[in-house]
Amino acid sequence: MLPYKSLIQIDRHASVALHVQVCNSFISLITKGTLLPSEALPSSRILAELIGINRNTAKLAYEELISQGWAESIERKGVFVLSNLPILEKIALPKNAFDTSHSAFSWTNHFAKAVLSKSLQKTKLAIDDGFPDVRLAPVDELMREYRSMARKFYGKGFLKYGSAKGSEKLRAAISRYLSDTRGVTASSDHILVTKGSQMGIYLAAQLLLSPADTIAVGNSNYRLADDAFRHTNAALLRIPVDDSGMDIDYLEKALQHQKIKAVYVIPHHHLPTTVTLNSERRLKLLALAREHRFAIIEDDYDFDFHYNNKPYLPLASIDHHQNVIYIGSISKTFAPALRIGFMVGPPVFIEAAAALRELIDRQGDTLMEEAFAVMFDDGEVDRHFRKSLKIYKQRRNLFCEVLRTSFADAISFKTPEGGLAVWSTFDKKIDLQKMSDAALQHGLFIDNGDFYKNESFSTNAMRMGFASLDEDEIIRALEILRKTI
Amino acid sequence: MLPYKSLIQIDRHASVALHVQVCNSFISLITKGTLLPSEALPSSRILAELIGINRNTAKLAYEELISQGWAESIERKGVFVLSNLPILEKIALPKNAFDTSHSAFSWTNHFAKAVLSKSLQKTKLAIDDGFPDVRLAPVDELMREYRSMARKFYGKGFLKYGSAKGSEKLRAAISRYLSDTRGVTASSDHILVTKGSQMGIYLAAQLLLSPADTIAVGNSNYRLADDAFRHTNAALLRIPVDDSGMDIDYLEKALQHQKIKAVYVIPHHHLPTTVTLNSERRLKLLALAREHRFAIIEDDYDFDFHYNNKPYLPLASIDHHQNVIYIGSISKTFAPALRIGFMVGPPVFIEAAAALRELIDRQGDTLMEEAFAVMFDDGEVDRHFRKSLKIYKQRRNLFCEVLRTSFADAISFKTPEGGLAVWSTFDKKIDLQKMSDAALQHGLFIDNGDFYKNESFSTNAMRMGFASLDEDEIIRALEILRKTI
Repeated sequence: MLPYKSLIQIDRHASVALHVQVCNSFISLITKGTLLPSEALPSSRILAELIGINRNTAKLAYEELISQGWAESIERKGVFVLSNLPILEKIALPKNAFDTSHSAFSWTNHFAKAVLSKSLQKTKLAIDDGFPDVRLAPVDELMREYRSMARKFYGKGFLKYGSAKGSEKLRAAISRYLSDTRGVTASSDHILVTKGSQMGIYLAAQLLLSPADTIAVGNSNYRLADDAFRHTNAALLRIPVDDSGMDIDYLEKALQHQKIKAVYVIPHHHLPTTVTLNSERRLKLLALAREHRFAIIEDDYDFDFHYNNKPYLPLASIDHHQNVIYIGSISKTFAPALRIGFMVGPPVFIEAAAALRELIDRQGDTLMEEAFAVMFDDGEVDRHFRKSLKIYKQRRNLFCEVLRTSFADAISFKTPEGGLAVWSTFDKKIDLQKMSDAALQHGLFIDNGDFYKNESFSTNAMRMGFASLDEDEIIRALEILRKTI
Repeated sequence: MLPYKSLIQIDRHASVALHVQVCNSFISLITKGTLLPSEALPSSRILAELIGINRNTAKLAYEELISQGWAESIERKGVFVLSNLPILEKIALPKNAFDTSHSAFSWTNHFAKAVLSKSLQKTKLAIDDGFPDVRLAPVDELMREYRSMARKFYGKGFLKYGSAKGSEKLRAAISRYLSDTRGVTASSDHILVTKGSQMGIYLAAQLLLSPADTIAVGNSNYRLADDAFRHTNAALLRIPVDDSGMDIDYLEKALQHQKIKAVYVIPHHHLPTTVTLNSERRLKLLALAREHRFAIIEDDYDFDFHYNNKPYLPLASIDHHQNVIYIGSISKTFAPALRIGFMVGPPVFIEAAAALRELIDRQGDTLMEEAFAVMFDDGEVDRHFRKSLKIYKQRRNLFCEVLRTSFADAISFKTPEGGLAVWSTFDKKIDLQKMSDAALQHGLFIDNGDFYKNESFSTNAMRMGFASLDEDEIIRALEILRKTI
């Protein structure tokens, strides 16, 4: 007989009933091959004694084992492992069936890893990629709405799954908001609620691009967008970016030689360099799109943050030929963990995107969407935008002032007209990795710039986010940085 | 001069400043081609009179227009549309650049459409596909945690983006929960938090399948899983399903002729037919997976609902060769709109899935995940499972009793051992579409069965969900159904 006393371990404090624990132990012994087909099991009396349980519990365990089809009871003989179970060989195969060749994504959760690393948990300060200050977000108001929605919602018996396009109310609220703030005319049918800009980029990439296709992107470009396009096996064509944004003449020349399926552009504060695409290039890009029949994926994640003049209207507001897919986010404005964004496009495209989105995660968080709709309708979103814009402008001014006065020898930059970060080019002598390491020793997280590099872009530069730090924190953070350079 | 009075419409009650409205109107006139390059604009005085605004507002509007690069001010001459703007031709092209060939998904948000349709909003009763009763979910407790998390979370300045794998706490809680309830041994590294089962299916499909691959699925099968597999352009091989689940002998024979990359199986209450895969077939499937090196995608969305014996342990609990990707959901148990699920697999696969998930939507709702972690740790999830299991068992018994006594001539079925629906085969004479239409006239939503059909499965049958109706509602719903047949 097997040494059941040591093989079958039970835990009287576990939430699982004892007889189920015993039954599961037997199943494990059978599937591991320790117990073979047709092998006799100890009687319930003996089992009970061996492992110190009540005899009825032992009986229940066998009943369970039999009812699950692992063992059989033969009259007057006892309980046996089922005879017709396929025998499992006891060979350990280290290799498995998974092809992990797809796992070569260039950037696995880069900032999150850094932020969650132990050394960072101790730091008090971080110069990030351009995140909002979550301390400013009206989370209490949002949560109040969420809770009240939860009550209302759950009073309705069978309204369980929502539309994959997102809450009807929120789509209507976004429709009004887009029209009021940026001249984009879009009815609910033109709008899909997403989980932030990233989902919009992913859906557009999946719907527009096939492996033989080419998509034009800026050089450098938002890395997670590049990755989403590469995931479709489409080719990336890198277009230079200068002070007036993406070089549309360069794109025009490229179009003479090759077919381009789509152009991904961040006209309003290009990521990473924060430059704005000028009016002339905007119109030319739209004209080219019409002539060459390519789609424009316009990522406008940053529209709400513009400090000097009013922001440029999006391409989507002056596109009369439905060539633009317009993508935006509220996450950036509120808090990244609250995942709400939108995608605007022709209804037929939005239908397709909704169908794909349904395959991915069926739908968003209906309650959160409804709560956000109320926040829009109450003017709470607008109030928050205005309030934080004012604060961010002060922070930008202070941050740039300190950079100008104390880092003239080390960092060159242009004061950004909008957005939450300064594109900072470091002196060639400064090793950004060493700087990052040294800063961490002094309690400051700052990245090493690798995130913005690609096969043809290696400037010694990075985005320095100013928005998530208050004025006192900005002073302290830049003092530490000054010491490490 | 153009009729500016009618062309420029302003709204004094809008939240956008007047001068911005005027500026945007001009941009619109320029981009539409109504105003041409080099065309003169009226002086600010005349404009102010024409459209009834203050002259300073008109000046501000022009300044804005100039600063955005649409117009220029020429000394002593006035303001002109910029001369070097590319001319937009006024041709309307009805066709657009979007290839919508990808939009042919077979099922666009089927139930949601039905549920949100106007006639249904008036109905009081629905026999659904097997949804939980959201009225039973401890939403207040969850919301209390969510709110408290929101306070704690937002106190932390820079913890903004979470891990794409999901909250560390929730992964630890799920790890304990899987070990306690179903013998699946998985550390946090083996777990990815998803937005419900669907995202797990989608991620697994994307990582495992290429266009030349074949995946084996049941016949019939969960339609949104079929669609997710088809989206990779892989071929589906349909395996018959009988009373003991998927026919593994059939699969074995198929493997002699062809390479199969993965098998998608719902061993515990197959969807739609609710049958359970027996032990012999489970072991054989695992042995085949090892021999032929295919992956098993085990969808166990329904584990928590089993009424008679204890549920079978998942394949993942007896898989010693890492061939199983195990997918489950808490959404089903709580409420579909609260999107939390999990995927369990080898760490290298989970890393790849997290990287892909990051491209899709970056991360889940950190707050909701943290709140759920507390619900698990407090035992609230477990209490809810036990409580609702008891209630659902009563509802199943009543529902099946009524079917047996009043529908013997019309519906054949087996009482399901678990899950939230009865697989009901209707008499051939009954036209399910007509029945569905007639029921709606009497205030009852019931589907027409099309959702379960595919190119080789056309049984006159459907799932009838009993869980979301209380006992009184079950009686009333089935009375209406009886009348319509």
